[in-house]
Amino acid sequence: MIKVGIVGGTGYAGVELLRLLAQHPGAEIVAITSLTDIGTPVWKMFPNLRGYLDLEVLDAATTRLDHCDVVFFATPNGVAMQQAPALLEAGVRVIDLAADFRLQDIAEWERWYGMKHACPEWVAKAVYGLPEVNRTAIREARLIANPGCYPTAVQLGFLPLVEAGVVDLAFLVADAKSGVSGAGRRAEMHNLLPEAADNFKAYGVAGHRHLPEIRQGLANRAGVPVGLTFVPHLVPMIRGIHATLYARLTKEVNLQALFEQRYAGEPFVDVLPAGMCPETRSVRAANLCRIAVQRPQESDVVVVLSVIDNLVKGAAGQAVQNMNIMFGLEETAGLCQIPLLP
Amino acid sequence: MIKVGIVGGTGYAGVELLRLLAQHPGAEIVAITSLTDIGTPVWKMFPNLRGYLDLEVLDAATTRLDHCDVVFFATPNGVAMQQAPALLEAGVRVIDLAADFRLQDIAEWERWYGMKHACPEWVAKAVYGLPEVNRTAIREARLIANPGCYPTAVQLGFLPLVEAGVVDLAFLVADAKSGVSGAGRRAEMHNLLPEAADNFKAYGVAGHRHLPEIRQGLANRAGVPVGLTFVPHLVPMIRGIHATLYARLTKEVNLQALFEQRYAGEPFVDVLPAGMCPETRSVRAANLCRIAVQRPQESDVVVVLSVIDNLVKGAAGQAVQNMNIMFGLEETAGLCQIPLLP
Amino acid sequence: MIKVGIVGGTGYAGVELLRLLAQHPGAEIVAITSLTDIGTPVWKMFPNLRGYLDLEVLDAATTRLDHCDVVFFATPNGVAMQQAPALLEAGVRVIDLAADFRLQDIAEWERWYGMKHACPEWVAKAVYGLPEVNRTAIREARLIANPGCYPTAVQLGFLPLVEAGVVDLAFLVADAKSGVSGAGRRAEMHNLLPEAADNFKAYGVAGHRHLPEIRQGLANRAGVPVGLTFVPHLVPMIRGIHATLYARLTKEVNLQALFEQRYAGEPFVDVLPAGMCPETRSVRAANLCRIAVQRPQESDVVVVLSVIDNLVKGAAGQAVQNMNIMFGLEETAGLCQIPLLP
Amino acid sequence: MIKVGIVGGTGYAGVELLRLLAQHPGAEIVAITSLTDIGTPVWKMFPNLRGYLDLEVLDAATTRLDHCDVVFFATPNGVAMQQAPALLEAGVRVIDLAADFRLQDIAEWERWYGMKHACPEWVAKAVYGLPEVNRTAIREARLIANPGCYPTAVQLGFLPLVEAGVVDLAFLVADAKSGVSGAGRRAEMHNLLPEAADNFKAYGVAGHRHLPEIRQGLANRAGVPVGLTFVPHLVPMIRGIHATLYARLTKEVNLQALFEQRYAGEPFVDVLPAGMCPETRSVRAANLCRIAVQRPQESDVVVVLSVIDNLVKGAAGQAVQNMNIMFGLEETAGLCQIPLLP
Repeated sequence: MIKVGIVGGTGYAGVELLRLLAQHPGAEIVAITSLTDIGTPVWKMFPNLRGYLDLEVLDAATTRLDHCDVVFFATPNGVAMQQAPALLEAGVRVIDLAADFRLQDIAEWERWYGMKHACPEWVAKAVYGLPEVNRTAIREARLIANPGCYPTAVQLGFLPLVEAGVVDLAFLVADAKSGVSGAGRRAEMHNLLPEAADNFKAYGVAGHRHLPEIRQGLANRAGVPVGLTFVPHLVPMIRGIHATLYARLTKEVNLQALFEQRYAGEPFVDVLPAGMCPETRSVRAANLCRIAVQRPQESDVVVVLSVIDNLVKGAAGQAVQNMNIMFGLEETAGLCQIPLLP
Repeated sequence: MIKVGIVGGTGYAGVELLRLLAQHPGAEIVAITSLTDIGTPVWKMFPNLRGYLDLEVLDAATTRLDHCDVVFFATPNGVAMQQAPALLEAGVRVIDLAADFRLQDIAEWERWYGMKHACPEWVAKAVYGLPEVNRTAIREARLIANPGCYPTAVQLGFLPLVEAGVVDLAFLVADAKSGVSGAGRRAEMHNLLPEAADNFKAYGVAGHRHLPEIRQGLANRAGVPVGLTFVPHLVPMIRGIHATLYARLTKEVNLQALFEQRYAGEPFVDVLPAGMCPETRSVRAANLCRIAVQRPQESDVVVVLSVIDNLVKGAAGQAVQNMNIMFGLEETAGLCQIPLLP
Repeated sequence: MIKVGIVGGTGYAGVELLRLLAQHPGAEIVAITSLTDIGTPVWKMFPNLRGYLDLEVLDAATTRLDHCDVVFFATPNGVAMQQAPALLEAGVRVIDLAADFRLQDIAEWERWYGMKHACPEWVAKAVYGLPEVNRTAIREARLIANPGCYPTAVQLGFLPLVEAGVVDLAFLVADAKSGVSGAGRRAEMHNLLPEAADNFKAYGVAGHRHLPEIRQGLANRAGVPVGLTFVPHLVPMIRGIHATLYARLTKEVNLQALFEQRYAGEPFVDVLPAGMCPETRSVRAANLCRIAVQRPQESDVVVVLSVIDNLVKGAAGQAVQNMNIMFGLEETAGLCQIPLLP
Repeated sequence: MIKVGIVGGTGYAGVELLRLLAQHPGAEIVAITSLTDIGTPVWKMFPNLRGYLDLEVLDAATTRLDHCDVVFFATPNGVAMQQAPALLEAGVRVIDLAADFRLQDIAEWERWYGMKHACPEWVAKAVYGLPEVNRTAIREARLIANPGCYPTAVQLGFLPLVEAGVVDLAFLVADAKSGVSGAGRRAEMHNLLPEAADNFKAYGVAGHRHLPEIRQGLANRAGVPVGLTFVPHLVPMIRGIHATLYARLTKEVNLQALFEQRYAGEPFVDVLPAGMCPETRSVRAANLCRIAVQRPQESDVVVVLSVIDNLVKGAAGQAVQNMNIMFGLEETAGLCQIPLLP
């Protein structure tokens, strides 16, 4: 059994990691640490876990995790870059669910995240953990930068088009919508139910931190920079991301075949039959991206619809998928739950 | 007092008409007719009205409405075109909240709505009831085609750009999101709470009936056809439309000033200060469109955010606004309620 | 015009006071004060008010309100008891929406609210502002203790039974359910949308602060103490309280007639016809309590269903109703909005 | 592998059966039949199942199910009583998720369900499938009457009190709340999202079909009839039932110990520590009932809080639990999923 440590297991990505790993056939949670709630049984914070996981939160300041095979950081941005290097040097493999190792351009990272990077040398060694792009590198990786939720949905939707070179890369539009859990488990006024329910709004239009991450991922595959407009919106629902993507076709192509071939064999990407639209609940609680591609009115515009559960394929589930690849397990181990509907 | 008749007052646009007209200072509801629920007090269908409106539903098949000054059709598509001509010929003015008179091209209407038009001659005489475009014509109109909900939000958002000729008209994107009441008060499986709540999806990507209506409105102002991609989505909320609009700038322009000048003096369009994002709840229950314009990352892409309450500015409120204009009342009469938040 | 000051206008009761008073025909808001958000236009906190109310938040520490005719305290518990006496002595009338003056037994108040009372002498002079019980006293009151939200719904439901002496007072059950706005506009984790949505739970079963308030009110009318079990629950909705009340009948009585007679002439209490059930949305945004009384299966148990909008009849609306009575206005002035549905 | 047939697999209990059985280690779905949607792949109705279950709906009128070991009826009331006898006589065991075999008193059943019973002889042989009461009988049962959702939550909450004889059986109150999926997957106006969201109401106060079922279950354990008032309510959420139960204590008893002892060893009943309140999301998607017992204010009133997922422990999960018992499998087989939160 792989020995797993979790740093910061008290947020939404944390509870999902606990849910998935508590029943993982090849892994065992040996420690959960946090700066708060020390000594609290995890089920007191997350009552769903009562009876399923009998662990208490340990003090992140004093708990050694060197004996773990892998440590997940489900912490705010800026924590993993402080603590991961010591673990990595002790031979522990690290999967960071935050953004510390996602951008290869350190200056850009520092501009978007408003802090100095603590270990630029590890950024170069980190592997961006999108298995549909980097599966081979992930196998050998010591440090995984687990992708953001929006970047997972948007990249998986654009990749077939970008890789095939069939769209105008200068004008890509990603209109993305997220459930409120995407904002994390933080007591913030605008995410109160009376503020966020029965309401819809855009935010971060001028610039969202996931913009450079998506641009980097698409540019890597295109071989050239891309012009991307990315507008995130808040949906009055708990979980789920829906990305609606727009691009202008520059070549004739069988879009349906292009997408089906790109993701043939991928266990966690499902290309829907032509004419269908995915809905977020069809992937609720599952490590799955469902994608549809359409060309409305036979125009030169392609529309891609991509849905994930932001906490699973957009966070904890993808992290477990990366762990499975890194340790040579079945890639689907512990990740076969059927989505929950209704 | 203007004598008002309502045909089909048992849907969501109907209950909103009743709410607004029951307290309108210059109008009086004299009859509500329907094919169903005949004899039922309206408050039994809409318990909010109990104590405020003491009317029963009359039989649409037998009730004469010739004594009304104006008749609102809050009926399914295809009803008003059958019944409006007789009223119009009797001198009654008509406001149709459905789509029967919205498209000037009869063939296109018949293609999208799947039926033969019953009175093409009245289509030519109808005025499209978007006051921000057609105020003068509305004053004299005998027959108003009240705009659809999506078309109201999308046109008001694009108009300043299209009229000023500052964007590429060949590639406009309208990514629109609607609350579930937009689907009407019909017992349909996919709008049940367990189906629509905690979920998000696109629909009608291949072609939605509001597409030709928007295209017609924008082309009229541009003087040339426009290339529009329109993707509607269903939001798990009761009311509200949010349109996120994308276009490429072809000329340098002060976007904020352009929008503020276009809507200066408009009582029901509010251009937000630069940098803000509107939210649907800020217009809940009010006849109001709030708009923001942004240019992310100083690129050549302009993003417009436009919100309305689909049942008010997107339906019943706009219909009352049209009535006010037609009868020479204050345009804001009966439409001054403050939006409801939270 | 009555000159109105509002202390603490940045919570949910505050925004409702602003919404109602901004369009009140006999009152004018002259000042809004707070300890936070000083200098902020109120519409920046409450975007629904943009264009309807052009006021900034003043510093509560330095702003004099002596020139007001009436001051509303929409503050946390414990504030009004500090600040109201000076205003009262200056001749200003005060309506406290918090709990400072609700319990006549000072020792009990101090036990439930965990602080020492700052002005017990004013508690004795305060009038409990439930107009359906205390209308005459409210007319002359200088200081109003505006009832809590649960106490309004529960007392209005039980009063006819308790006053008529037809139920066993030793065993009354009030099972009450509230929307999340009842918890106030405070950044607390458990009221985040991902925590509170698609969920239902009881809370405060061992003892909730509204218990002694309800007991006091019922005992006053009964002339003896009452045995009340009160269990509040949190409903995943924004607004609304539904109280389901249970009691054992000790005398035969025509329940429907009893309730209708008790509330005949009351402008803001609506007794539904026999056999109906009220729903919270039927009073949404309105100063109204709708009540039904049933006797299931012809047993000796009476069930009363009572609904209000917690922010209106349960807070700001009732406060305005009290103001109207105090100043000799029409009791319904500014309170005639039709509830919003859907 | 147990061969399983499902009649009527197109409702919410049906999709849950499919979700649970598709990954059950000891059972295999061999046929799903329905009167509608014949030939449709189940994933087209329930997009969550796409990729997990590759079955089409068979015609209920022509499909033989005699080769099944067990057949689940997830049909409307009145279907199983027509079709089960033939299967039973062919040696197939039957689990009916509807109400056909729940009431032993045929006359009472016919009164509440408004139809003549088709096979009273099988009612006498049916076992009421509440394992916490009837585990031994379930092992040998040929026909299981799977309990209703409200009856499961209410009986499990009251049983320890009733069996111990410590409460006044003449006055039990069950105030129950259900998510909207409890109403089934039927296109009914009042369950549309715009009708049911942001709203709360009671229904069926005069008499709900689950009342006689609960009364029968409690009376069986008490040995005498019970006086029960049962009021169901509709909560704007997808899944979950919360029952708040009230009774007067007639004997001193350690309530916490009473409940813990009653359910010691029960795999799917969790008695919470003293002072806690269960929430419905803590059992979302799991076959679990969480219960808390409190005695507020040291009065003689006991309050029990009981939560289940209406579609799992209240329907499909309990049905699978019964199947496991009937066929000698581990009772928890296929039912160990951790509840989903948030």
